[in-house]
Amino acid sequence: MEIKKSRKNTFLYLEIAQKIESQIYDGVLATGDKLPSVRILKNEYGVSVSTILQAYYHLESKSLVEPRPRSGYYVVFCSENRPEDPEKTNPKQNAVLGSVTDMIIDFYHHLSNKSLVNLSLGVPSAELLPIAKLNKTMHETIIKLPAGGTYYDNIEGSENLRRQIAQRTLLWGGNLVESDIVITAGCTNALLLALMAVTKAGDTIVVESPVFFGILQLANTLKLRVIELPTDPNYGLDIGALKNLLKVKEINAIVLIPNFSNPTGSLMPDEHKKEIVSIIQQHQIPLIEDDICGEIYYGKKRPSTCKLYDDSGLVMWLGSFSKTLAGGYRIGWIAPGRFKSDIMKLKLYLSSSTTTIQQEAIAGFLSTGRYDYHLRNLRHTFHANSLKYIRAIGDYFPKDTLVSKPKGSFFLWVELNKKIKTKTLYERAKKCNVIFMPGDIFTLQDQYHNCMRLSYAMEWSDEIENGLKKLGSLAKEMM
Amino acid sequence: MEIKKSRKNTFLYLEIAQKIESQIYDGVLATGDKLPSVRILKNEYGVSVSTILQAYYHLESKSLVEPRPRSGYYVVFCSENRPEDPEKTNPKQNAVLGSVTDMIIDFYHHLSNKSLVNLSLGVPSAELLPIAKLNKTMHETIIKLPAGGTYYDNIEGSENLRRQIAQRTLLWGGNLVESDIVITAGCTNALLLALMAVTKAGDTIVVESPVFFGILQLANTLKLRVIELPTDPNYGLDIGALKNLLKVKEINAIVLIPNFSNPTGSLMPDEHKKEIVSIIQQHQIPLIEDDICGEIYYGKKRPSTCKLYDDSGLVMWLGSFSKTLAGGYRIGWIAPGRFKSDIMKLKLYLSSSTTTIQQEAIAGFLSTGRYDYHLRNLRHTFHANSLKYIRAIGDYFPKDTLVSKPKGSFFLWVELNKKIKTKTLYERAKKCNVIFMPGDIFTLQDQYHNCMRLSYAMEWSDEIENGLKKLGSLAKEMM
Repeated sequence: MEIKKSRKNTFLYLEIAQKIESQIYDGVLATGDKLPSVRILKNEYGVSVSTILQAYYHLESKSLVEPRPRSGYYVVFCSENRPEDPEKTNPKQNAVLGSVTDMIIDFYHHLSNKSLVNLSLGVPSAELLPIAKLNKTMHETIIKLPAGGTYYDNIEGSENLRRQIAQRTLLWGGNLVESDIVITAGCTNALLLALMAVTKAGDTIVVESPVFFGILQLANTLKLRVIELPTDPNYGLDIGALKNLLKVKEINAIVLIPNFSNPTGSLMPDEHKKEIVSIIQQHQIPLIEDDICGEIYYGKKRPSTCKLYDDSGLVMWLGSFSKTLAGGYRIGWIAPGRFKSDIMKLKLYLSSSTTTIQQEAIAGFLSTGRYDYHLRNLRHTFHANSLKYIRAIGDYFPKDTLVSKPKGSFFLWVELNKKIKTKTLYERAKKCNVIFMPGDIFTLQDQYHNCMRLSYAMEWSDEIENGLKKLGSLAKEMM
Repeated sequence: MEIKKSRKNTFLYLEIAQKIESQIYDGVLATGDKLPSVRILKNEYGVSVSTILQAYYHLESKSLVEPRPRSGYYVVFCSENRPEDPEKTNPKQNAVLGSVTDMIIDFYHHLSNKSLVNLSLGVPSAELLPIAKLNKTMHETIIKLPAGGTYYDNIEGSENLRRQIAQRTLLWGGNLVESDIVITAGCTNALLLALMAVTKAGDTIVVESPVFFGILQLANTLKLRVIELPTDPNYGLDIGALKNLLKVKEINAIVLIPNFSNPTGSLMPDEHKKEIVSIIQQHQIPLIEDDICGEIYYGKKRPSTCKLYDDSGLVMWLGSFSKTLAGGYRIGWIAPGRFKSDIMKLKLYLSSSTTTIQQEAIAGFLSTGRYDYHLRNLRHTFHANSLKYIRAIGDYFPKDTLVSKPKGSFFLWVELNKKIKTKTLYERAKKCNVIFMPGDIFTLQDQYHNCMRLSYAMEWSDEIENGLKKLGSLAKEMM
């Protein structure tokens, strides 16, 4: 390939790259912005495709931009303001029977309050969802189903939907079939069934720390003791800590979110997944793998699962469409491995079948390929949002603020100066119409008082920029 | 009013009544059939309206026909074949921790098998449901709801639906308001929440006997001991037995279906409801009142509830639209009284919100008055079916067969000769494509082996007549 030089005797591609670079430094091009397509720039500069591509490769090598499959190049923030990662957590490792705060119920009420800058959302906001196409599929499904879907479905759930879910396991190398899957009323319901299948009151489970509060609430309701283990904001659970614990303590189940943990967004590497599976097989401990955000990855491919490495049936793989399509449809699933007959009975006893119409509608939506198209957009939006949030936190928050760098999903874990109590910050921010989730909600231990979870599951806007700015200035006042 | 005489010097109205009477005795008019309208007969015989009415009054006085509000006159069976009522049950009263048979899961698979005469149905068959109007309401709701109802609803459920349910409590003298009600994913889910709110593993609950198997399965899952009390097939739970039990045993909750118990169809009289409430208030025992079929009454008015007589908040009143509209919509409710905050938390922890669209669709359906029109038809069909089934059992089953005479809902409790094991009968009948629910499923005690529950939640047909005939002849063979 021939390399063209400009009249100034520098390489053309470098000239172009430098122009873009200065726009990034000047803030004309901001984090998460899409760069012009190769074709447009080629025409604008009157150069070849390969020259433009070289310019982009150059910017990529400097970590200023990054390519996204089938979408083009995007600006990646790399200013000096960029906040550092939080350290690996170091919770106390005693088994606790206890409850997190009751404030969770309030967050459901905030959902419909449009005047709030709601950074507590656990679900994508409506403008990011394919509502028109979902509605169309719902209408078609109601007309198509016998008796309009008024009948009780069978206990394992829609065969069409189970087949679609099974087919998607190919994306991470899985080879599940429809009979490996049981449909549930969302992922919370799947977690309930999984925990009830393998534990009884007084048992002890292991979780990451910080950990999704829903797991802590379920454990307390079922009277299970919880041990939180050290967790890295990049790589998830500390496997060494798990090994040490198992030497001294009998554990009845492990509950993990290996792909984009809630709240840190950590991604457990494949080697760790393999090792965890080998550990649970050795100790014969059931592993409940909550993979609810596994399809919301920012990288090149769908991350794998612990289920992939398990031939013992000890791994229960759980998911849902609540984080990608419609929380209000209440459709999730569980691939229960060796516990299938227990899960089926529990589902029958506790709730009977799952809503008929929504199961078939989602199956229909998936079968058309609309889901994959939608997911591509969702991933791009969330990835860009994560960079924009990190940039804003760097700009507005106290200088010693630490922030996780999620590789998927839509949550940031923010660690503020120890002096700042986020429960107090929450009360103050709420008065300014900004809400988030304080760190206390994500543990049963006396910790994370200076932490928060920020959700970026909505379109970026000036309101959000201003909300983050407000949070930052309130935090600074508390120093 | 002048009374006309015919040429034969008998009264005209008697002549007409005798013609109808002989058609009934000859089987030309069968149990549950609607008699011609007064207008049609008036024209046919060329007599006045009052003459026809006199004929019908005469037949009614002989218990051959009966009027139904806004519908006309129907044939009531009164042949000598009419089977007797079963005796009040007399179960052992020890507290049992145990499970009923696993065959229940099979019944869900039978639901879609059209080649079966399915007398095990727990839900009206599709031809009895207002499918077209429900579908229309679903379409309208999806279009009307923000974001097509993809969002998580709040935890207590749709305000519109709770208001509709609260308004319907006026029908039994209740005065609930929307904040008294929490929506659940069907009545099974409501039962789960109610039991979890007031009991813990190892506790003891009291139920009717025979009792809906779902209650037994839930109790076993939650590790609750169950005491079954003597129950009358007409009047429900034996209150004297309850009083005696409470003198010697501590009870943590009582679960009753006072209106049309499943499986006997018994209706607890108002005086008994009052007395039960007074007993639970005295002993401070929560009462879980499953009123899922309370609107499917055959009498002149909606029966009252225990909730009506309770000012202590100890009664939790439960219902659902599964038995009247759409089991597959998975919408029920609970009026939790003093346990509301516990129920809200449990719902949040175990399942989060309920499916958004179906809640609003049912609220819309109820607000138009379509529901009342539909219920009137449903009650007429089920009442007529109950009489037809009882007639068929009288005709085809062994002579010593006893049958309950339900006053609502759509189940018959049949007690056969002690020699006949209904589990064996079930296996034989299944080979002939007829299924029902054997009595063993409705108890944890060693009893009801000679009993069965028959559902009549579908249009009467020759297939059903032949199915009952087959059951009867198989039973006779087993004597």
